[in-house]
Amino acid sequence: MEFGTVDAIQRIPYHFDKSLTRRMSMYAPDPARTIAELKELRALTGNADGAQRVAFTDTWAMARNWLRAKMAELPVTEHTDEAGNLWFTLPGVSGKSLLIGGHLDSVPNGGWLDGCLNILAGVEILRRISAEGVPPVTVRLVDWADEEGARFGKSLFGSSAFSGNLDLDEARSLTDQDGISLPDALAGFGIDLENVKQAGAQRKDAAAYLELHIEQGPVLLDMDLPLGVVLGTCGVERHAVTFHGQAAHSGSTPMNRRKDAFLAAARMAPEIYEIAARHGGVCTIGSCVTRPGIVTSVVEECRITLDQRHLDAAALAVMLEEARLASARFARDGNVTVTWDRIWQIEPVPFHPELIELCDAAILETCGVSHRLPSGPLHDAAEVSRAGIPTVMMFVQSLHGISHNKIEDTREEHLEQAVVAFDRLARRTMAWLATAE
Amino acid sequence: MEFGTVDAIQRIPYHFDKSLTRRMSMYAPDPARTIAELKELRALTGNADGAQRVAFTDTWAMARNWLRAKMAELPVTEHTDEAGNLWFTLPGVSGKSLLIGGHLDSVPNGGWLDGCLNILAGVEILRRISAEGVPPVTVRLVDWADEEGARFGKSLFGSSAFSGNLDLDEARSLTDQDGISLPDALAGFGIDLENVKQAGAQRKDAAAYLELHIEQGPVLLDMDLPLGVVLGTCGVERHAVTFHGQAAHSGSTPMNRRKDAFLAAARMAPEIYEIAARHGGVCTIGSCVTRPGIVTSVVEECRITLDQRHLDAAALAVMLEEARLASARFARDGNVTVTWDRIWQIEPVPFHPELIELCDAAILETCGVSHRLPSGPLHDAAEVSRAGIPTVMMFVQSLHGISHNKIEDTREEHLEQAVVAFDRLARRTMAWLATAE
Repeated sequence: MEFGTVDAIQRIPYHFDKSLTRRMSMYAPDPARTIAELKELRALTGNADGAQRVAFTDTWAMARNWLRAKMAELPVTEHTDEAGNLWFTLPGVSGKSLLIGGHLDSVPNGGWLDGCLNILAGVEILRRISAEGVPPVTVRLVDWADEEGARFGKSLFGSSAFSGNLDLDEARSLTDQDGISLPDALAGFGIDLENVKQAGAQRKDAAAYLELHIEQGPVLLDMDLPLGVVLGTCGVERHAVTFHGQAAHSGSTPMNRRKDAFLAAARMAPEIYEIAARHGGVCTIGSCVTRPGIVTSVVEECRITLDQRHLDAAALAVMLEEARLASARFARDGNVTVTWDRIWQIEPVPFHPELIELCDAAILETCGVSHRLPSGPLHDAAEVSRAGIPTVMMFVQSLHGISHNKIEDTREEHLEQAVVAFDRLARRTMAWLATAE
Repeated sequence: MEFGTVDAIQRIPYHFDKSLTRRMSMYAPDPARTIAELKELRALTGNADGAQRVAFTDTWAMARNWLRAKMAELPVTEHTDEAGNLWFTLPGVSGKSLLIGGHLDSVPNGGWLDGCLNILAGVEILRRISAEGVPPVTVRLVDWADEEGARFGKSLFGSSAFSGNLDLDEARSLTDQDGISLPDALAGFGIDLENVKQAGAQRKDAAAYLELHIEQGPVLLDMDLPLGVVLGTCGVERHAVTFHGQAAHSGSTPMNRRKDAFLAAARMAPEIYEIAARHGGVCTIGSCVTRPGIVTSVVEECRITLDQRHLDAAALAVMLEEARLASARFARDGNVTVTWDRIWQIEPVPFHPELIELCDAAILETCGVSHRLPSGPLHDAAEVSRAGIPTVMMFVQSLHGISHNKIEDTREEHLEQAVVAFDRLARRTMAWLATAE
């Protein structure tokens, strides 16, 4: 087992605070090794269509065994909790724990970075820390079970069992496309669904949680920045908005006699987008279904889906209220009616303010420039944060802004900077925890 | 056999030109009898769901036999042409023929008036004319085969065979929902599809064509008028307009990075409607389909159907061109592209200017007020007109503006006025033909 040294890290441009880095440790992670291991995992568990590590499948189990072999070389204990989360614990002077997390599972035909970059950067950090001797606080790497929810349609399985937010009634009823139930699939991996919330015991002594992830969007790409600090995950309001008009013959009905449900929805759409832009949130009308939906009839019913997101709960509530008012106004103007049905919602999860500062500092130290941004997609980090554990995430730039696809990619230079900066964040967080001790 | 006399017609308020009516004839139609016969037909061929006289079915054949029995009392000859159109000919001094047409066939669960009002008003007019003796010109009543196209999806079968416009290649390929082909269904009624255009021989000596129909729209209802003159059938341009953007995650994609195909279509829609209103036409976006069409993705592809109609070919062409330009502008502004695919088109069919005047006069004589309007829906009259035969239609008000439904209805007072006015139109048209002789 060889650890990266200060020499190894010279390959990364360290323009800032070099002296500090050298003073703090003789050891540094070897980000090139992380990239090599990511490629090794890709070769082992992917094919021409991309990554195939869907949770609770043989390929996923193989990936975990591969990870276990890597970790066996470190002075860590291994534990799989009741929800199938895989823990590696490096005991410290204090039982107080720094958690570093990610997920080996992928969507079908997924990218080579989503989730496993987090894990393998964590592996490299544990190598660095253990090489330095017994750390002041305990450090734990966790591979969350089924972050993607690709097979059963419900994401964040393991982390929501850990946080206690998992809806057991819903989980019991989930089946995959072959009709296999989630409880049966879990049983095949030695997991009893009825016991999964006992994974909450792992929250004991957890004092901070760090997660590195590819951005999955184009913000850092557009700004030409390698890394960013994630302020939290956005709250989401998801509704079906249905306009109800009257079907009428397209040839015999004068324009002024119509109750056109599509036209009302169409007139409203730009206003809904305006509202999101005005409040600094995002919104998406992702689906529009018209009935009867034939070329010779005025649309009687037009149902759109509206997804609104904001990092600030109050701003999200205002976005929703303004959208409701706008829909009512456009319905009235169009002589139709409108109804709203909530599909789903989740509150925003702001990350920990001090950890945000530490993350910002680690990025500045590494790249000289940082950026703070919210995450639209959910991550395991949101569940950990909801469990009351101080949490922050770091994003690394995605090329194309695309993930969940084999073309998902990040420049290797940026991956190396990510590993270095994430290690620095771990170092700063450990110091912060030790100080608070 | 009793004919209506001038006494019978006193029940209709004749405020205008009463002296002229009396001078012209001892005989008048009995519109109450027409209503009684419509009800008789409804009882014979309808049920609780409405009229069931779908062409090329036993119920339709029964309706035709019922009509034959009515006509057997008149001095007419009966003939079924190669397309299954049923002709009753009352020979006149001249072989030059006035045609009066309609259709007994209905959609499934249809109304009690659509198509058969035309036929039964024609029956009453032939009674009146034959009672007066040998007419100056020949008068023919035609029951067109399969106006509705309800079973095989293609309307105006018999009249387009008559006009020569029927697309035989298309007709050969049509099947009903049970998989029965149109040629096989026709064979069951003694019709050989390959010979149907021989029905064109019936155009010989045809000098004018008249058709009475319920409006199927709300224009006369809104104006509180019983009757209107139809200026022609609108031209139709029917297209699929597809916006092509880019799918992107609804949570991680900033608003200014999106290529949102739905938003571009939505922004365009009101402008397309404006264009129709500005040119006095109508247009309808009847269908909107989004792909991938999920709540968590920006819409990559949005396909709408656009149906544009106008009575004037040049105005319709401008409407289409302006819509194309608008779509390109909104696509450019939305950073997406747009493509157009023609689904169907038909040119406007303006009716005969002198017959329009005669129809107007007949309505004025009967009701004291008339109105000229285009027909959005197509009618057999459009095919007859396209065959070069001077044509006009008269509309009677529809309650609710709805047809093709069991709730289709017209006030009996208006039906009686329709029969009287249509008879007067026939009388004026015969005089016009005799003068031209």
